[in-house]
Amino acid sequence: MAIPTDPDTGEFVRAANHFDARITADGSSGWPVEPGRYRLVVSRACPWASRGLIVRRLLGLEPAVSVAVADPIQDEKSWRFTLDPGDVDPVLGIKYLAQAYHAAEPDYTGGISVPAVVDVPSGKLVTNDYPQITLDLATEWTAYHREGAPRLYPEHLRDEIDEVNRGVHADVNAAVYEAGFAAKQSAYDDAYRRLFAKLDELSARLEHQRYLVGDTITEADIRLFTTLVRFDAVYHGHFKCNRHKLTELPVLWAYARDLFQTPGFGDTVDFDHIKSHYYQVHENINPTRIVPNGPVLSEWARSHGREELGGRPFGEGTPPGPPPPEETLPAQW
Amino acid sequence: MAIPTDPDTGEFVRAANHFDARITADGSSGWPVEPGRYRLVVSRACPWASRGLIVRRLLGLEPAVSVAVADPIQDEKSWRFTLDPGDVDPVLGIKYLAQAYHAAEPDYTGGISVPAVVDVPSGKLVTNDYPQITLDLATEWTAYHREGAPRLYPEHLRDEIDEVNRGVHADVNAAVYEAGFAAKQSAYDDAYRRLFAKLDELSARLEHQRYLVGDTITEADIRLFTTLVRFDAVYHGHFKCNRHKLTELPVLWAYARDLFQTPGFGDTVDFDHIKSHYYQVHENINPTRIVPNGPVLSEWARSHGREELGGRPFGEGTPPGPPPPEETLPAQW
Repeated sequence: MAIPTDPDTGEFVRAANHFDARITADGSSGWPVEPGRYRLVVSRACPWASRGLIVRRLLGLEPAVSVAVADPIQDEKSWRFTLDPGDVDPVLGIKYLAQAYHAAEPDYTGGISVPAVVDVPSGKLVTNDYPQITLDLATEWTAYHREGAPRLYPEHLRDEIDEVNRGVHADVNAAVYEAGFAAKQSAYDDAYRRLFAKLDELSARLEHQRYLVGDTITEADIRLFTTLVRFDAVYHGHFKCNRHKLTELPVLWAYARDLFQTPGFGDTVDFDHIKSHYYQVHENINPTRIVPNGPVLSEWARSHGREELGGRPFGEGTPPGPPPPEETLPAQW
Repeated sequence: MAIPTDPDTGEFVRAANHFDARITADGSSGWPVEPGRYRLVVSRACPWASRGLIVRRLLGLEPAVSVAVADPIQDEKSWRFTLDPGDVDPVLGIKYLAQAYHAAEPDYTGGISVPAVVDVPSGKLVTNDYPQITLDLATEWTAYHREGAPRLYPEHLRDEIDEVNRGVHADVNAAVYEAGFAAKQSAYDDAYRRLFAKLDELSARLEHQRYLVGDTITEADIRLFTTLVRFDAVYHGHFKCNRHKLTELPVLWAYARDLFQTPGFGDTVDFDHIKSHYYQVHENINPTRIVPNGPVLSEWARSHGREELGGRPFGEGTPPGPPPPEETLPAQW
């Protein structure tokens, strides 16, 4: 995979999201909420796509929005459905996610990214706008939420969630990539500095409160979690984010374990997909493609003690049940 | 730097030491012990060479055997004296260590390695046989040891020291390189497995005894230390030895801090040389040559509590004084 960096600064340049249509309850966008109509295409390796997996589980949207899981190893045509029989996604009938992009825009030459929401009847990509996808699952799809679904983006907390998300995006979610893909020392140094300053700030914030905003799980926790759960497995070594391992940051490590052990979080995480993807796809920074055996994953099951801080994980709601059998992952350790 | 690996197994193949003459007290080898005659050429990045720096310090051989410190970054002609004025070693009058190799053997085409002992009058390499160099400093140079020098290779413990050294060499000192330079997953997996099995065994051995053999510091401790002190800075991430950081292995971490804080150990360690070398020279495994900012080094100064295990670090002897001013390193954190 070629990694685009700025020739002057050596900074990693993330491609903009190109398809940003929204699926709305009132259908005014042209894409109405409709159970069974859309397919969420993800890689379980990808932190941006994994947000959608978690939100869908927490809200009980599995019956309404189906999921396609791509092979964690992209080839030159990008994400592919080689985990499925015949290497074809059984619902979309395509071998490559790129086919849905080209169905929507035949001349498209940009990047092929997950998460991607595809309209099943037409086979066309609707959106790859990852920050909006989860918000719309939380706010536009309410008619199909399970009973007891939590409110992940409640109106009265949106300003605060948005503000936390901005900081977490810039200095955590994106910063790990900017450290790992930096082509120059100064670009790396800057990303590393911002990352650990932010992690220290988040540690202080979470020392005495169980969740990032309010006293329940919100979109803000989901966005931080998908980076934290990958931290020691890939970002610490492969992306050189090595001031500390997550296991050496006691507050964030307990916070991350708390979420991991909450139904809807850890049961979406496939460490094998995560490690295979990062170490085998980024040949620019790992030419041997060897996948490290560490770290020890069973530590994720250790007790976290965060119940003592109070908090109501699902607010007035309840935890989701187990994942559907076809989405149940193999034991992770 | 090209890394030689076996095309079938993907295993890293370490070059044999080619020059194995010995400097002896009785001069029977043709190279008699003689103060001021030999120069020990090292890189402070290199774990094999750093053994010699520690032994020389512990034994007070600084006035008898001078030291040349090579630039941690080799170029295509290998180790060079670019840290010295005019890029020339002030005693040997050469720019490259290779010149001493070729003075000894004009047609030599093998690798240029440190540690290397050079005969100053002739400018010829005497030996690059690292396992023997430190043993001979301990046993052949006794007439020039300082008062209070420890016995690093005492006769009555040699069998045990040799046995421990064999295991540490195969499964620690060399295994980290075999993990890091493996060209195939199976070769990496094997080295990783042997490394951590051995570290677990050493942890058990050191839980109730302060040093590896007997109750004093010996050659065995020195050989283990030079790998441990590099573990989190380079082997954990760069060489994928990531089951745990050293800081997560409580016995070995306290043992390593104990030695680090002992005069003659930590005062030879230059983390900047270590990190620059590994991350900038091995472009095959780190093409960007970016040097990580972590880990936090000041933890090496934390108390270790190993005094409670008893032990007499220097036996009947005493610790060395501080390094000579010209060999005093800048603050490491």
